[in-house]
Amino acid sequence: MRFGVVFRILGALISFLGLTMVFPILFSLYYQDGDLWALLLSASITAGAGVFLFLCFRKSTEEISHREGFGIVTLGWVSAALFGSLPYVFAGVLPNFVEAYFESMSGFTTTGATVLAAMEGVPRGVLFWRSLTHWLGGMGIIVLSIAILPLLGVGGMQLFKAEVPGPVADKLKPRVAETAKILWQVYMLISGVEALLLMFGGMNLFEALCHTFGTMATGGFSTKNISIGSYNKAYFDGIITIFMILAGTNFALHYQVLTGNLGAFHRNSEFRFYWMTLVGAMILVTLILWAQTYETLGTAFRYASFQVTSIMTTTGYTTADFERWPFFVQYILVLLMFIGGSAGSTGGGMKCMRILLLLKQGYRELFRIIHPHGVIPIRLGGRTVPQEVMQSVWGFFLLFILVFVLASVFMALLGLDLVSAFVSVAATINNIGPGLGMVGPMDNYRSIPYLGKWTLIFCMLIGRLELYTVIILLVPEFWKR
Amino acid sequence: MRFGVVFRILGALISFLGLTMVFPILFSLYYQDGDLWALLLSASITAGAGVFLFLCFRKSTEEISHREGFGIVTLGWVSAALFGSLPYVFAGVLPNFVEAYFESMSGFTTTGATVLAAMEGVPRGVLFWRSLTHWLGGMGIIVLSIAILPLLGVGGMQLFKAEVPGPVADKLKPRVAETAKILWQVYMLISGVEALLLMFGGMNLFEALCHTFGTMATGGFSTKNISIGSYNKAYFDGIITIFMILAGTNFALHYQVLTGNLGAFHRNSEFRFYWMTLVGAMILVTLILWAQTYETLGTAFRYASFQVTSIMTTTGYTTADFERWPFFVQYILVLLMFIGGSAGSTGGGMKCMRILLLLKQGYRELFRIIHPHGVIPIRLGGRTVPQEVMQSVWGFFLLFILVFVLASVFMALLGLDLVSAFVSVAATINNIGPGLGMVGPMDNYRSIPYLGKWTLIFCMLIGRLELYTVIILLVPEFWKR
Repeated sequence: MRFGVVFRILGALISFLGLTMVFPILFSLYYQDGDLWALLLSASITAGAGVFLFLCFRKSTEEISHREGFGIVTLGWVSAALFGSLPYVFAGVLPNFVEAYFESMSGFTTTGATVLAAMEGVPRGVLFWRSLTHWLGGMGIIVLSIAILPLLGVGGMQLFKAEVPGPVADKLKPRVAETAKILWQVYMLISGVEALLLMFGGMNLFEALCHTFGTMATGGFSTKNISIGSYNKAYFDGIITIFMILAGTNFALHYQVLTGNLGAFHRNSEFRFYWMTLVGAMILVTLILWAQTYETLGTAFRYASFQVTSIMTTTGYTTADFERWPFFVQYILVLLMFIGGSAGSTGGGMKCMRILLLLKQGYRELFRIIHPHGVIPIRLGGRTVPQEVMQSVWGFFLLFILVFVLASVFMALLGLDLVSAFVSVAATINNIGPGLGMVGPMDNYRSIPYLGKWTLIFCMLIGRLELYTVIILLVPEFWKR
Repeated sequence: MRFGVVFRILGALISFLGLTMVFPILFSLYYQDGDLWALLLSASITAGAGVFLFLCFRKSTEEISHREGFGIVTLGWVSAALFGSLPYVFAGVLPNFVEAYFESMSGFTTTGATVLAAMEGVPRGVLFWRSLTHWLGGMGIIVLSIAILPLLGVGGMQLFKAEVPGPVADKLKPRVAETAKILWQVYMLISGVEALLLMFGGMNLFEALCHTFGTMATGGFSTKNISIGSYNKAYFDGIITIFMILAGTNFALHYQVLTGNLGAFHRNSEFRFYWMTLVGAMILVTLILWAQTYETLGTAFRYASFQVTSIMTTTGYTTADFERWPFFVQYILVLLMFIGGSAGSTGGGMKCMRILLLLKQGYRELFRIIHPHGVIPIRLGGRTVPQEVMQSVWGFFLLFILVFVLASVFMALLGLDLVSAFVSVAATINNIGPGLGMVGPMDNYRSIPYLGKWTLIFCMLIGRLELYTVIILLVPEFWKR
């Protein structure tokens, strides 16, 4: 790995991060919550460190290879979370570095797991920064999953170019910068619409933006203690549900629809799977909640559709204490955590496309046994999926399970009960946020022991970066020349 | 499917089953527990039905194809469990048919999950029959996994011929009957040695045989309420631990060792994986139990080694209430449930060979990303694993997870809590027996609702028959001509 190139780009990213701290500073100036100096200091250090790094390596302008790509992505998230944790520390909100780093990583990975117990006591400048990290993380993810990972050939993402015709004609523009620009315009446009709709419903600019960031990045940080449930307003529930669904959809598809290709959703097999799973789960959960928890079908549907969407898109907003819902519903929610959103969305989890391909593979094997000598290719959207892509998807799936098992066993070793150990890892590696047990919707991650917090920080990072991007850096073979 | 051939062979199997009821009848005569007529009636009906079926189809002597193979195996187990449930019903031990069928299926699938609460009140003839169903099921499984499934090409078992050189030279004798005879001799020999050693330690013939059957079939039915723990004798714990390990080993390897090929264990990669996992888990659990539960290292090792072996080999005998052990240990035990024994043993679970191949595949994918154009084959025991075998293994793994998820969600729908829903399916689909929560080591399966019992009966069957053998019968394509 040529570190010069990596550091040069990291320097640019960190400088940009410092610049974005202007926005929380503006809110701090307006609300006068006493966090101004903390934010100014954080912004200066971040921008300063970024510029320094960039200048040191400004002459390293070589072409970026695969290896440097992995380094930039992983170190990018690790260092964004590092500098992003400064406001929490300096403002005294989370003086303990582990907790500040946890909150910051949870923001940039769009997880939404929090160690903050009382949101209402946190200065609003810092709260705004917290939500902004979601939105910035979401921007990173969209570009990563549509423009970078397919090139790196990670976990079946190479299929992406074939399955989802990108913004331009039949494939994405090869240059990352151009693709990024187009997708960010879509991201900002949809974000703008949501913010306006939330303000229309009565939120002020601060709340509307924070919740828009949380929605569009499928993050889940709220400015309220009990999340969206604190508004108890069906309008907000509905708007946020719709935008969570949009955020869990491939942004390349949004671009196509916005540019007039109205059938793009319908023709896309991953979207159909995403949508059918979502609707199927909503119906199932609505019926159970109607039968056992809520009085009217309408109420049951309102809470069911919000929570199913929030969990499956890996957002993590809550409008009800779903830990009090029937076990069956809790089980369904845990399963949805693993499916997650679409590839190319801001959603986490294993992604609908992979689950769909794995199901097709499982079913295909039945035919192979019946017709031992037949060759039955796996098809998606009318095209044959290459064998290498299927192998990448299997590899991803196996590695995911392996990491999941190791991490959750380790959490049990730290003393967590079985449900908490299992779900705390599920809720972080899939980038959701709230889970069950110790990390239920009415709890937070503060009570997790320190070693456990570090484990979950690693889970958030590795889950967000599609495993391989991080793990590959830990394989000695990667460093051989 | 040509049903004539299937029914003819089933008739022969059922007649044989009727004959084996002679053994419980002998014990019934000896102990005079009042179950003689029930057993005589069961034996007559079973043998009669078998002979009738055989005579009806005696002219159907066509060659057996793949299709009939699947039919014979699945219907064989289903009907063995059906006739095997008669003694429970007639003796009034389990007058409810669902419970009798559950107990019988649990026996023949060598699961060991029981609905009986008080073993000491059950007539000994019936108890002997109960343990004998384990041993008969174990005989079936050995032949199935070494002689039949590799020919049917199920779930990677086709690799088997290559990986484990069978009794004769480099591959198993093609004729199932010959292979069966050889393997059964090994099975009976090892069983005989265990029974003698147990009698040497003080068990009477009845107890020694019942516990031998439970061990060698990795079943787990005991004649005591609290299983092996009721003897509280380190000698029994040790003997049974050793024979559980032997029962979880490929019987073709035993044959090789017995015929003088002493290095067979060491050279076999699946055995090495099995052994290392077992020893690793024993050490880990011993250390945790020593630190948190038991006073001395010796006691910790005694209980840890027994329970780890019992769960990983999917036997299910218990010497301690492991639900009171630290969560970490419980988590390890649940993981071991899924790994299971070796292929070609009487153990259940996903089998060590598959887990080993999946791990190799996951690791291989890392190299593929680093060297996108390199071809890196997966090797086992010095040979390259064919791509079709890997696909079969993947297909098996995916289907396993799918069935597991559907079944456990359904258990949650019936009202079971998350741990009970998860573990009751894990303990039956992997053919273990005791689990956690409602089906913990000190509980039984009686409190599971009826629909849940049927679900778990299906899990035991499908898990025991390597999924495909059963599922394939449910695919419409299978029935097309």
